[in-house]
Amino acid sequence: MAKNILNGKKGLIFGALNEESIAWQIAKKCHEEGATFVLTNKPSSIRLGKLSELAETTNSKIIPAEITEPDDLRRLITETLNHSGGRIDFVLHSVGMSRNIRKNTPYDSISYEYLTETLDVSAISLHKLVQTLISLDALNEYASIIAMTYVASQRTFHGYTDMAEAKALLESITRNFGVYLGDHKKVRINAISQSPTPSAAGSGINNFSDFYTYAELMSPLGNATAAECADFCAMMFSDYTRKVTMQTLYHDGGFSSVGLSEHIAKLLPRQDETSI
Amino acid sequence: MAKNILNGKKGLIFGALNEESIAWQIAKKCHEEGATFVLTNKPSSIRLGKLSELAETTNSKIIPAEITEPDDLRRLITETLNHSGGRIDFVLHSVGMSRNIRKNTPYDSISYEYLTETLDVSAISLHKLVQTLISLDALNEYASIIAMTYVASQRTFHGYTDMAEAKALLESITRNFGVYLGDHKKVRINAISQSPTPSAAGSGINNFSDFYTYAELMSPLGNATAAECADFCAMMFSDYTRKVTMQTLYHDGGFSSVGLSEHIAKLLPRQDETSI
Amino acid sequence: MAKNILNGKKGLIFGALNEESIAWQIAKKCHEEGATFVLTNKPSSIRLGKLSELAETTNSKIIPAEITEPDDLRRLITETLNHSGGRIDFVLHSVGMSRNIRKNTPYDSISYEYLTETLDVSAISLHKLVQTLISLDALNEYASIIAMTYVASQRTFHGYTDMAEAKALLESITRNFGVYLGDHKKVRINAISQSPTPSAAGSGINNFSDFYTYAELMSPLGNATAAECADFCAMMFSDYTRKVTMQTLYHDGGFSSVGLSEHIAKLLPRQDETSI
Amino acid sequence: MAKNILNGKKGLIFGALNEESIAWQIAKKCHEEGATFVLTNKPSSIRLGKLSELAETTNSKIIPAEITEPDDLRRLITETLNHSGGRIDFVLHSVGMSRNIRKNTPYDSISYEYLTETLDVSAISLHKLVQTLISLDALNEYASIIAMTYVASQRTFHGYTDMAEAKALLESITRNFGVYLGDHKKVRINAISQSPTPSAAGSGINNFSDFYTYAELMSPLGNATAAECADFCAMMFSDYTRKVTMQTLYHDGGFSSVGLSEHIAKLLPRQDETSI
Repeated sequence: MAKNILNGKKGLIFGALNEESIAWQIAKKCHEEGATFVLTNKPSSIRLGKLSELAETTNSKIIPAEITEPDDLRRLITETLNHSGGRIDFVLHSVGMSRNIRKNTPYDSISYEYLTETLDVSAISLHKLVQTLISLDALNEYASIIAMTYVASQRTFHGYTDMAEAKALLESITRNFGVYLGDHKKVRINAISQSPTPSAAGSGINNFSDFYTYAELMSPLGNATAAECADFCAMMFSDYTRKVTMQTLYHDGGFSSVGLSEHIAKLLPRQDETSI
Repeated sequence: MAKNILNGKKGLIFGALNEESIAWQIAKKCHEEGATFVLTNKPSSIRLGKLSELAETTNSKIIPAEITEPDDLRRLITETLNHSGGRIDFVLHSVGMSRNIRKNTPYDSISYEYLTETLDVSAISLHKLVQTLISLDALNEYASIIAMTYVASQRTFHGYTDMAEAKALLESITRNFGVYLGDHKKVRINAISQSPTPSAAGSGINNFSDFYTYAELMSPLGNATAAECADFCAMMFSDYTRKVTMQTLYHDGGFSSVGLSEHIAKLLPRQDETSI
Repeated sequence: MAKNILNGKKGLIFGALNEESIAWQIAKKCHEEGATFVLTNKPSSIRLGKLSELAETTNSKIIPAEITEPDDLRRLITETLNHSGGRIDFVLHSVGMSRNIRKNTPYDSISYEYLTETLDVSAISLHKLVQTLISLDALNEYASIIAMTYVASQRTFHGYTDMAEAKALLESITRNFGVYLGDHKKVRINAISQSPTPSAAGSGINNFSDFYTYAELMSPLGNATAAECADFCAMMFSDYTRKVTMQTLYHDGGFSSVGLSEHIAKLLPRQDETSI
Repeated sequence: MAKNILNGKKGLIFGALNEESIAWQIAKKCHEEGATFVLTNKPSSIRLGKLSELAETTNSKIIPAEITEPDDLRRLITETLNHSGGRIDFVLHSVGMSRNIRKNTPYDSISYEYLTETLDVSAISLHKLVQTLISLDALNEYASIIAMTYVASQRTFHGYTDMAEAKALLESITRNFGVYLGDHKKVRINAISQSPTPSAAGSGINNFSDFYTYAELMSPLGNATAAECADFCAMMFSDYTRKVTMQTLYHDGGFSSVGLSEHIAKLLPRQDETSI
C-alpha cells in the first residue's frame, strides 16, 4: 500500500540504525509515499549500523550529526536546507539512550551523570533540534514534527528506569513547543507512543521481552510493528492531519486503554493458590 | 488533495444533515478518496436536511433508520450489506441530541426523561450499532469505526449540560467495545474529539459561540474545520492507522493540551481592576 | 486511630449492607471521628443486610429510600434534615448494580433494558441525589459529597461490562455538578476510585477474584482495604480537604500509575514458550 | 482547626523562605497538628528569608543543605536522624527555580545550561533526596513524601517555560520511585498540584498574576491558598491516607477539571466584535 501521500514533501529523519529501527521503517515508508529526506545519526551509530544501505535504497543523503550539540545541529539543518533546496516539511526524532538501562542499574541507585546524559540525548535533544529549526527558519507552513515515545512516561514499567523520565520530559517538550510552533509557524508537533518494538534500542532494555509479551497479551489488536508505525507516522507527516498537535498519540493496538485483559487474567494464580 | 486512500473501501455514515455537518464533509471526503458508502439518518432529519443532494454528489444510497432501535439497525445493516455486496470497512457515528440543551435547562435542573433520551441517542446508540454489526458479521477484518466526541467528556464546559455525560459514556463504550472488536474481529474503534464546529448540532448549544471563540483563542493552530476533520477521519478509516484503537483522538488545533494561552491571558482583568 | 476530625459534622450515607460494605466501614469510621449521620438503602437491601446492627453501633437513624426515585429522595432528604436539626455536611454515594454483570452477559450482547437500569441506579442516581440536595437547600457551606468509583471507568477490565460505562458516567456527573456546587454553595464533590474490595457488590462480579489478585500484584502498597478507604473518605469529608473538588481520587495502593510490575512480569510466559 | 493528626510524627521540610511560602504554611500546620521536624533550605535562601523565625515558632532545628548535592543531602539526613532520634515519617519537597523564567527568556530560546539547572534543582533533587533517604534507611514504614507541582506539567501555560518540563519530570519521578518505596518500604510518595499561590517562587514568574486571575475565574471553589494547601498536606502526611501513592493530587478548587467557566466566557469577545 502506497498512495503517494507525501508526494513532494521534504524531510529529515533521525535515528535509523538497521532494518529493525523504527526510523528505518519510517524512512522506507516515506520514500514509498513520495517523500525525499536527509538521514542523520551520530557518527558512531552510522559506523555501527547500515545507514548507507538505507540511503541507497531511498536515494537519500546522509549527514552525520550529534543531536545534543547545538552547533552541530545548526550545521546539519543548514546542509539539509541546501541539499533539499528549501524548507522542509517533516522531521522525525527517534532517539533515546540510557546508560543506566544499559548497565542494568536499579532505579533507586541510578547514576546522576548518566541520568543527565539520558535526558539530554533522549529529550532535551528535541528542544535543541526544534530551537535550531526555528532559528534557521527551516520549516514550511504545516510542517509536522514527530518524536517517538513510550507509555512508561505515564505509568511505571519495571526495568525502564530513567528512560521513563526522559519520555515524560520529551512529551512535555512536545506540548510546550507546540504552542510556539502553532502560533508562529502553523507547524504541528506530536509524540507517537508505540508498542514495544524489537530493535537495537529495545534490546538494550534488560527485560524488554517482558514488556513485549505483556503488551502482546494486553493489546486487543496485538503489538504494533515497526512497519505499522511507519504507516501511521507517514500519515502524521501528511496533509491529512494538519490540525493534530501537542498530542501523545498511542499507536499500540489498544494497550494504553486496557486495564486487565482476558489473556493476562488467565495467567493469574487462582485465589486458593495464593495467600491473598 | 485526494490520494485515493480509501480505494475500494465500503462504509456506512450516520449523521449528515447539510453541508455544515461534520458527517457531510466526511462523506464528501470519503467519496473523493475512493470509498463507496450508504448514508443514513433518522427519517425526520432526512426530511429536514438535504441528504439526497449529498447522495447524488457521492453516488450513494440513503437508507433511513432510527439509530436507537435495534430492529431498525438490523434492517439498516442488512440492507447496507446487500447494497454493498458484502461486508463493510468503515462506520461513522456522528450523532448527538439533547433536549435539555435545546430547552436551555441548567445542569442542576435537567429533566431525567430527557437525560435518558440524550444518553440513548448520543451514546448507547453506538453500542446498539456495534452490537448489530457484530451479530450480523458485517465488518471486514481491520474495519474502522469512528464516533464523534467533544472534550467536555473530560472537562466541564458551561452550557453543555448533559451532553458532557453522553460524550463520557460514548468514549467509555468506544474503549470497552474495542476489546471485543480487536480480539475477535481485528476491528478498531476510536472517538475523534473535534474542535467546536459550526453546524446544526453545534448551533443547538445556547452558548456555542463562546465554545468556538474560546477554543479559537486557546488553540495554537486555531479551531479545526469540518473539512479538516474529514481529512483526519478519512485517514482513520484508511489502512495507515490499523493499530490505533480504543483512543480518544484530539483533532482540535492543540486545544486539549493548552492550559492558558497568550490570547486568553490578554483578556483577563488586570490585578488592580479586580479585588483579587 | 481517631482524632475527632468530623466532630459536629452531620451526614447521609448510602449503600451499607453488611460489614464487608465499604459504606459500612465508612459509617463506622465517621462515627469514630465524631460525626452523626442517617443511614439509607433501598428497602430490599435493608431486609437482606444487617443495617440495623450498624445503626445501633453508630447511634444512627435508618431511613429507607429508593435512590432512583426523585420523590423518594425528596422525602429522604426532608426527613434527614428534620432528624439532623439542620443542613448536613457530607454525603456518601456508594451504590452500584448491574443485572448484566449478575447474569454474566458478555459485553457484546448486554441487554439495553438492564443497561438503562445499571446507569440509572449506579450513576444517574447521583445526579438525582444532588439535584434534590440543592433544591431543598440541604447542604452546609463546604459540605463534601463522595461517590465510589472504579478505575474501569478509564481502562477496560474484562468482565466488568456495563458497570464501566456507569462509572464513567458517574465521574462525569461528579465533574459537571462540581461547577454548580462550587460556584453556588462552596460545596465539593469527588469520586474515590478504590482498589477491588471483597464485598457483596464485588462478589457479584464473576471474575472479581481476578481483579483483586491482579491489582494486588500490580500495586506497590497492595490493595487498599475497606477500612483504609474509610480513613481516606473521612479525611475527604473533613475540613482538611476543602479545596479538592471535581476529582477522581485513586485510593488504590498505586495501581492506577503502574504499567507493569515485577510481580506480574514473573507470571509472563518466557518468549521461547510462546509463539510471539 | 487542629486535631493532632500528626501527633508523634517526625519530618523534614524543604523550601520555606517566608510566611508566603507554601512550605512555611505547611510547617506551621504540621506543628499545630503535633509533628516535630527539621527545616532545611540552601544557605543563601536561609540568609535571604526568615527561616529562623519559623524555627522558633515551631520549635524546630534548621539544617542548611544544597538539595542538588548528594553528599550534602547525606549529611542533612544523617543529622536529621540524629536530631529526631530515629527514622522520620514525612518529607516535603517544595523546591523549584528556573533562571530561564527569572530572565524572562521565551521558550524557543531558553538557555540549555539554565534548563539543566532548572531540572536539577526542581526535579532531579527529589530523586537525589529519596535515594539518600533509602540508602540511609531513614524512613519509617508508611512514611509519606510530598512534592509540590503545578498543572503546567500536563497542559501549557504561557510564560512558565522550562518549569513545565521540570514539573513533568518531577511527577514522573514521583511515580517511578513510588514502586520501589511501596514494594520495599511501604512508603508512599505523591505530588500535590496546587493553585497558583502568591509567594517568592510564584512572583518570579513574569505573568504570575495572569495564572492567578485565570485560575481564580476558572475554579468553582476559587484558588486554594497556601494555608489550605497546608491542611491538605498535613492530611497526606497523616495515617488517614496510607494507601494513596504515585498520584498527582489536584488541590486547586476544581481548576484542573474545568474546560470553560461562565466567568471566563463573559470575558470573551462577542462574535460580531471579532473576525472569527
